[in-house]
Amino acid sequence: MTFGELMLRISPAGDSRLVTATGADLAFGGAECNVAVAAARMGASARYVTALPDNSLADAAIMKVRSFGVDTAHMHSIPGRMGIYFVEPASGLQPASVIYDRAGSAVTCWNPTDTELEGMLAGVTHFHFTGITVAIGGEAVLTLIRILERCKERGIHVSMDVNYRMKLWSVDAAANGLSPVLCYVDTLICNENHARLLFECTAEADLEKANLLHVRFPGLTNVVVSRRRAVDETHDAWSVVAADANGHSFQSSKRNINMIERVGGGDAFAGAFLSELMSGRALEHCLNFGAAALALKHGIRGDFCTFTRKDVESVMFANSTSGVVR
Amino acid sequence: MTFGELMLRISPAGDSRLVTATGADLAFGGAECNVAVAAARMGASARYVTALPDNSLADAAIMKVRSFGVDTAHMHSIPGRMGIYFVEPASGLQPASVIYDRAGSAVTCWNPTDTELEGMLAGVTHFHFTGITVAIGGEAVLTLIRILERCKERGIHVSMDVNYRMKLWSVDAAANGLSPVLCYVDTLICNENHARLLFECTAEADLEKANLLHVRFPGLTNVVVSRRRAVDETHDAWSVVAADANGHSFQSSKRNINMIERVGGGDAFAGAFLSELMSGRALEHCLNFGAAALALKHGIRGDFCTFTRKDVESVMFANSTSGVVR
Amino acid sequence: MTFGELMLRISPAGDSRLVTATGADLAFGGAECNVAVAAARMGASARYVTALPDNSLADAAIMKVRSFGVDTAHMHSIPGRMGIYFVEPASGLQPASVIYDRAGSAVTCWNPTDTELEGMLAGVTHFHFTGITVAIGGEAVLTLIRILERCKERGIHVSMDVNYRMKLWSVDAAANGLSPVLCYVDTLICNENHARLLFECTAEADLEKANLLHVRFPGLTNVVVSRRRAVDETHDAWSVVAADANGHSFQSSKRNINMIERVGGGDAFAGAFLSELMSGRALEHCLNFGAAALALKHGIRGDFCTFTRKDVESVMFANSTSGVVR
Amino acid sequence: MTFGELMLRISPAGDSRLVTATGADLAFGGAECNVAVAAARMGASARYVTALPDNSLADAAIMKVRSFGVDTAHMHSIPGRMGIYFVEPASGLQPASVIYDRAGSAVTCWNPTDTELEGMLAGVTHFHFTGITVAIGGEAVLTLIRILERCKERGIHVSMDVNYRMKLWSVDAAANGLSPVLCYVDTLICNENHARLLFECTAEADLEKANLLHVRFPGLTNVVVSRRRAVDETHDAWSVVAADANGHSFQSSKRNINMIERVGGGDAFAGAFLSELMSGRALEHCLNFGAAALALKHGIRGDFCTFTRKDVESVMFANSTSGVVR
Amino acid sequence: MTFGELMLRISPAGDSRLVTATGADLAFGGAECNVAVAAARMGASARYVTALPDNSLADAAIMKVRSFGVDTAHMHSIPGRMGIYFVEPASGLQPASVIYDRAGSAVTCWNPTDTELEGMLAGVTHFHFTGITVAIGGEAVLTLIRILERCKERGIHVSMDVNYRMKLWSVDAAANGLSPVLCYVDTLICNENHARLLFECTAEADLEKANLLHVRFPGLTNVVVSRRRAVDETHDAWSVVAADANGHSFQSSKRNINMIERVGGGDAFAGAFLSELMSGRALEHCLNFGAAALALKHGIRGDFCTFTRKDVESVMFANSTSGVVR
Amino acid sequence: MTFGELMLRISPAGDSRLVTATGADLAFGGAECNVAVAAARMGASARYVTALPDNSLADAAIMKVRSFGVDTAHMHSIPGRMGIYFVEPASGLQPASVIYDRAGSAVTCWNPTDTELEGMLAGVTHFHFTGITVAIGGEAVLTLIRILERCKERGIHVSMDVNYRMKLWSVDAAANGLSPVLCYVDTLICNENHARLLFECTAEADLEKANLLHVRFPGLTNVVVSRRRAVDETHDAWSVVAADANGHSFQSSKRNINMIERVGGGDAFAGAFLSELMSGRALEHCLNFGAAALALKHGIRGDFCTFTRKDVESVMFANSTSGVVR
Repeated sequence: MTFGELMLRISPAGDSRLVTATGADLAFGGAECNVAVAAARMGASARYVTALPDNSLADAAIMKVRSFGVDTAHMHSIPGRMGIYFVEPASGLQPASVIYDRAGSAVTCWNPTDTELEGMLAGVTHFHFTGITVAIGGEAVLTLIRILERCKERGIHVSMDVNYRMKLWSVDAAANGLSPVLCYVDTLICNENHARLLFECTAEADLEKANLLHVRFPGLTNVVVSRRRAVDETHDAWSVVAADANGHSFQSSKRNINMIERVGGGDAFAGAFLSELMSGRALEHCLNFGAAALALKHGIRGDFCTFTRKDVESVMFANSTSGVVR
Repeated sequence: MTFGELMLRISPAGDSRLVTATGADLAFGGAECNVAVAAARMGASARYVTALPDNSLADAAIMKVRSFGVDTAHMHSIPGRMGIYFVEPASGLQPASVIYDRAGSAVTCWNPTDTELEGMLAGVTHFHFTGITVAIGGEAVLTLIRILERCKERGIHVSMDVNYRMKLWSVDAAANGLSPVLCYVDTLICNENHARLLFECTAEADLEKANLLHVRFPGLTNVVVSRRRAVDETHDAWSVVAADANGHSFQSSKRNINMIERVGGGDAFAGAFLSELMSGRALEHCLNFGAAALALKHGIRGDFCTFTRKDVESVMFANSTSGVVR
Repeated sequence: MTFGELMLRISPAGDSRLVTATGADLAFGGAECNVAVAAARMGASARYVTALPDNSLADAAIMKVRSFGVDTAHMHSIPGRMGIYFVEPASGLQPASVIYDRAGSAVTCWNPTDTELEGMLAGVTHFHFTGITVAIGGEAVLTLIRILERCKERGIHVSMDVNYRMKLWSVDAAANGLSPVLCYVDTLICNENHARLLFECTAEADLEKANLLHVRFPGLTNVVVSRRRAVDETHDAWSVVAADANGHSFQSSKRNINMIERVGGGDAFAGAFLSELMSGRALEHCLNFGAAALALKHGIRGDFCTFTRKDVESVMFANSTSGVVR
Repeated sequence: MTFGELMLRISPAGDSRLVTATGADLAFGGAECNVAVAAARMGASARYVTALPDNSLADAAIMKVRSFGVDTAHMHSIPGRMGIYFVEPASGLQPASVIYDRAGSAVTCWNPTDTELEGMLAGVTHFHFTGITVAIGGEAVLTLIRILERCKERGIHVSMDVNYRMKLWSVDAAANGLSPVLCYVDTLICNENHARLLFECTAEADLEKANLLHVRFPGLTNVVVSRRRAVDETHDAWSVVAADANGHSFQSSKRNINMIERVGGGDAFAGAFLSELMSGRALEHCLNFGAAALALKHGIRGDFCTFTRKDVESVMFANSTSGVVR
Repeated sequence: MTFGELMLRISPAGDSRLVTATGADLAFGGAECNVAVAAARMGASARYVTALPDNSLADAAIMKVRSFGVDTAHMHSIPGRMGIYFVEPASGLQPASVIYDRAGSAVTCWNPTDTELEGMLAGVTHFHFTGITVAIGGEAVLTLIRILERCKERGIHVSMDVNYRMKLWSVDAAANGLSPVLCYVDTLICNENHARLLFECTAEADLEKANLLHVRFPGLTNVVVSRRRAVDETHDAWSVVAADANGHSFQSSKRNINMIERVGGGDAFAGAFLSELMSGRALEHCLNFGAAALALKHGIRGDFCTFTRKDVESVMFANSTSGVVR
Repeated sequence: MTFGELMLRISPAGDSRLVTATGADLAFGGAECNVAVAAARMGASARYVTALPDNSLADAAIMKVRSFGVDTAHMHSIPGRMGIYFVEPASGLQPASVIYDRAGSAVTCWNPTDTELEGMLAGVTHFHFTGITVAIGGEAVLTLIRILERCKERGIHVSMDVNYRMKLWSVDAAANGLSPVLCYVDTLICNENHARLLFECTAEADLEKANLLHVRFPGLTNVVVSRRRAVDETHDAWSVVAADANGHSFQSSKRNINMIERVGGGDAFAGAFLSELMSGRALEHCLNFGAAALALKHGIRGDFCTFTRKDVESVMFANSTSGVVR
């Protein structure tokens, strides 16, 4: 189960720019929903919880999420608006850019009843959220804490992806805001840049950063730290390490990634990684499986993973990427 | 000069429905802006005043409005969001439908300085607004009243289109809300349905309704009342009457209108009607010119008039609509 | 629950014709699936059973059907192909036309195990199929009969829509082929034209035809007979009558339907009609509800109902279709 | 064989207008080429002769014409430009409109050698041209007359469609310009409006007009006169009569035509009519066959007939237009 | 002349994936047809022989092939279906993928009469086919052998491209299946990978492989062996060698190819190579000309070559690829 | 202020080629207009002068140019045609290619009155033109010289971009044609290739070429020489140097440019460079600012700069291009 905000995603059609676009592609996305979709595509049982307005946009959003096999029974309808984000892909020297228009969205006004909370947690063994839900604030962060408390009581495994967004809050606000929720977290996912900015992990090596996070937040079981570096304007190098509570550590091989779209890459990692972790696979396998999903996701437009478990396994074990399969 | 809110308009591409759409047409619209565009296309000098956020969506909106020859120097950029509306065209038995997502838009947060007010009114002889600006409230209605006060001081002619929208406020709220601004109005444009709902004009004939409005709001010079009736699912019958302060009255001939898009029809009437009124033409001419523009607009997608003065004159004097001009 | 063939639907993009089309709209459809989707959109619990190949087309089909809230757990994957149909909309004088390419599709090769049959029928109270499943033959008709036998044993209500297709079989073949399955049917849906062609119901009035069908197939509880007549090239008049086992009869009012797309209209009727029948509503209500859904469906492209229960109720009780809801 | 100018046809994409279009549909068309295509689609052997520039636009044009089975071996490449026309469809009250940009096109600069003339006429039994070729002038009209002289020498049947275009020349210029070529014509096709304007056929009845044309141009064998009247903004009534040299006359039944596109309708008539005349069918059959093709063409976008002989026969003998063929 | 199966080619529109595509590009393709088109574009006289169903899809296919100047008089219409293939382009790490739906297509059911065989071979000096026609089997392989026998009798030069497709048959089946037809072949085209897999050419160098094929199939005149290696995810290195019956050998320079689409590259080589071979050019020229066509084809979407002979010559002799020609 | 020809720009839609395109993107462009747009986007006050026909294409062109904030009051309407150019982007090995269809365009027939000349020059401090206006000839070159004379009289700074186009005139014709106008030029912009071809600047280094131009045309103040070299099929290296009348010289750093579209790159440089020069910035800053604009422009489709001054400054000072701004 994941909880967070689902937004309408609007991107200019074809290779046009927002400033002159006359058409747009409509889709949906949001970090926690992306993770639920990725996990469901990998074969896990996934539930996504949010609040949406009672209109045909929300109907469309629910239909889309449900199409991926995610349990949508707890996507509630209340009066309000749906958050929107506009995304322009990178083009030549111009970087990809996002305009958020998500203030006052339904999920930040939603105060679920205790019965609703019980209902959404029924049968759940794993709960995932991201720092974005804390950043958007309002009722959403209160609801999050009510969920986290119940998770602790019932022994539900909790994972969190830091996902710092500078357009939503400052570094200081984020560092302060995330502290109260980190004590509920079992598995923490963070990129090395955010680890340095928010948690003063100044070590050079990712593994050291993971260990510093263990020291700083003693409740953590697993710490996962990723690193991304630009190779050229369409390729990034990406790798990930993990350290568990026993002091064991693991790392994926480095991947050179062709970036057709970068949005949603980290969520694909989280969803695929968690689907494996939930089924009890070894941490090293989970890292490599997640890394393959992340790599594959960068070739797909949109927030959601459209590929299958089989596709991820092909990439994970592939020697070569050439050829037509015919 | 007109003042009001400019929104991003999102409509599902082709003949798709929002609930399953993967693409959308992006455009801009808002009653007061539509009127400014229509007046500019008819050859009048037009200025549009609003506040927009400081991002590429607002840049796109300004570029679009400017393309029609409207003076955009007073479209201010402030922090905030742009209002959005989603519009689904009618399809068979399903009526056209609008989802507003305009709460908290920049114009409702904008408090212009006195210097800015002076600047926007420099050289202006005519000011137009609609009831929508009152309905959206916030700072917008305060700004409106500051503008109206200055108009009275300087003898600027003020026109208002009632444009009641039930998704924005109730009939009672609208009747109460519009009262304080009506005392500034010289020319009132209203459809007979709204005249009945908001101002208790229960007379059957439109001309009687116009006279009742004169009685009720003694400051008015011209009252314009329009009537629309469905003929079949793609055609409406439309006509308009006017009564001036001297008790003279005029009426257009009735038009049978092929409705490819209904949104913006009334604004095309207002813009064309006012462009003629501003240049001192007789009220009867103004009505017929406006009616021709309204009829032409119903054949055009989008909020804005793309046709020219010459096109309106062709329709105004045409005997027939058949044939290819080649 | 419904059982039948799901096809890939390919229609030329925009207003192009197949002979010169360079683009196409891709969708899915099939009478029994359309009924399940319509019932689910109306709020009923619906399951769709079929066999599809194990490839990404089938993955897409399952995702699409699931998006509407239909239970897709019994859409089986086996080696084989997916049936395809090409549909060209009517254009001016040229009638809409369908090219079937469905021979040898997976469902006609599928021989489910007894366990699979038990699984698909678990919890089912109503089963619907159409004459098309009999027409495509192969294993599909054998599977159908195995399902029908179990329905009789368990008292599951069985409904059938005759849906005669002359491109699939001759009138004689259909009359012979449908006889063995009709003895399992409780509720029969048939248009008056097919009633005359296949079952020699030569009476002029639809109600008499319904009574003749009762006489000819004594096991029937409800007989529903519809009638369609062309008004002009874009409008049809449509009405429906029903007769129950007690000799009571009901009829809907006649509707004048604007035909943006005719494919799937009868399935919308069946799905909406059955969703009401399943929840125990009076036959007259069921007819009118179904008729409203059928009318609404003719304004929507594609096989599937995208509108909601609320939309159908609006049409059912509407006095007028004019206006923009804003 | 037909001879004339082939133009690039540019129309704004979807339902956009030229003034705001960002995309266009590209096609080709020209009256004489349209006739050749229609005749070829109806099963006749057809050759189209023209001159085009030596670039990829001309390559595209030749490929398109060849795709319909027209003999393109005599579409010559010379230095120069291709004529262009922009066509905006009618929309609501705004009539369809054409912008010609055809001055100085290759065909008006082309002076074929005698050998080339011999080559193009080899095996030809029928030659068709229209008044447009005379209107565009330059070398085109000289080439036309050289062709016509050879036709007379060899007994090749010559047909002409008057096709007066007011954007190309005045009524007086056309009346004077067409006189010298009319003496070569065997079969004249003219609408009653052009007959009145250019040839002073003031009689009310079309048949009388046909007889007056026989009197005025004694060399004519067949005279074909058509009549079109607007019914509403999307429908025209259309009929045609013919008078032969023996004083016999024939007329088609009147058709009510749904006008999705009007351009190319007359050419479809001419091509279908001539394909039948060439194969020796009775004049009455030719008229009705041509009328069915014209009616069908009005439902098809673009200059060219995409339907088949079988489609025309269906329309010719149809009782009804309703239904889906499935 | 070439003989084989022509398929409808369906690829998801834009950069969408099949699993979520709502639109598709429609085209046609098939190895032998692609070769005929390429040869015709290069200026050769080309005829393509196949069987297609009698519907508008086949009409579209014939029109498309004819547009390229290929003789389509022997594309026969019989009852049946047209083969289809779905092609998804590579995207990032996901390889391009093909779903074949070609079982039971018309050409595998077609048994031409002797007269039809005589007709298609009239005037033919060269016959080309590929291993795919053997793989699809049914009547197609019997028809192929009847053609090959007649070629031998009349001294028609026969060329074959091995084109092994693992989705159609196993390596063993292919090795066995191709043996009986190889004895009719004069010019064999094979890539080094298939040479190794099917014919046990284990030598490292392509030239040695060509010589081994000469040894193994003594009837061969020319053996052409190509090699492709991935450089990165969008570039391949490609080269080709040939050995003739006199033991002379030739090789092209290696090309670094930007792969916008890989499908149809080998067919472009074959068509261009054979157009030169047919006109008696030296083998070395033929290789280089074919290699230039292959390189150019990788920049073009679709199965068919749209470029011209002049474009190939530009690439063949070019020093640089930079710049805009203006 | 700039003066020149504005053309309709037609490019095949998506990744299609002209020879098979069925759709096109419509835009406008022309070197001098592109410069005016770029300067306006960078914040300069810009006026564009030209002559266009009096039709809806010209209306569209004026609206587009005005949308960018360029003063369009001196885009005159006269009878005639609008120049057109067809542009095919590079694809793999096939270079981008342009077909000009601009002979006889309105601007080459326009002979402005002295009053019109006075009007267009009112308030102007800087005038820019390119060698293309000389190449198209007719009245355009005479008008140009009348403007240049007035510029000299009033001390208006004159800049010229050589922009040699081999499809418009030969090297000799250009060298002769440009001589008479060069004596009016203050700032000359030229690429090193054109400097060598037209002005015999055979020195290897760009700075030497700039100095040679100073020697040859003594009236020049600034000489700007750019250099472009292909890196691979999608990247160019680009740099620029300038020498002023005092013998000082400056050079930009070399940029590696990802070429999504090359057309309009030089105009973006000129517009951005001149906007800075006009506001009195140092030559070195102007070069670097222009180079950043040129680099950014290569990532944007179409002739016009859609990015903002802020985007150029980001590129000018950026260390890295990676990441999503969110």
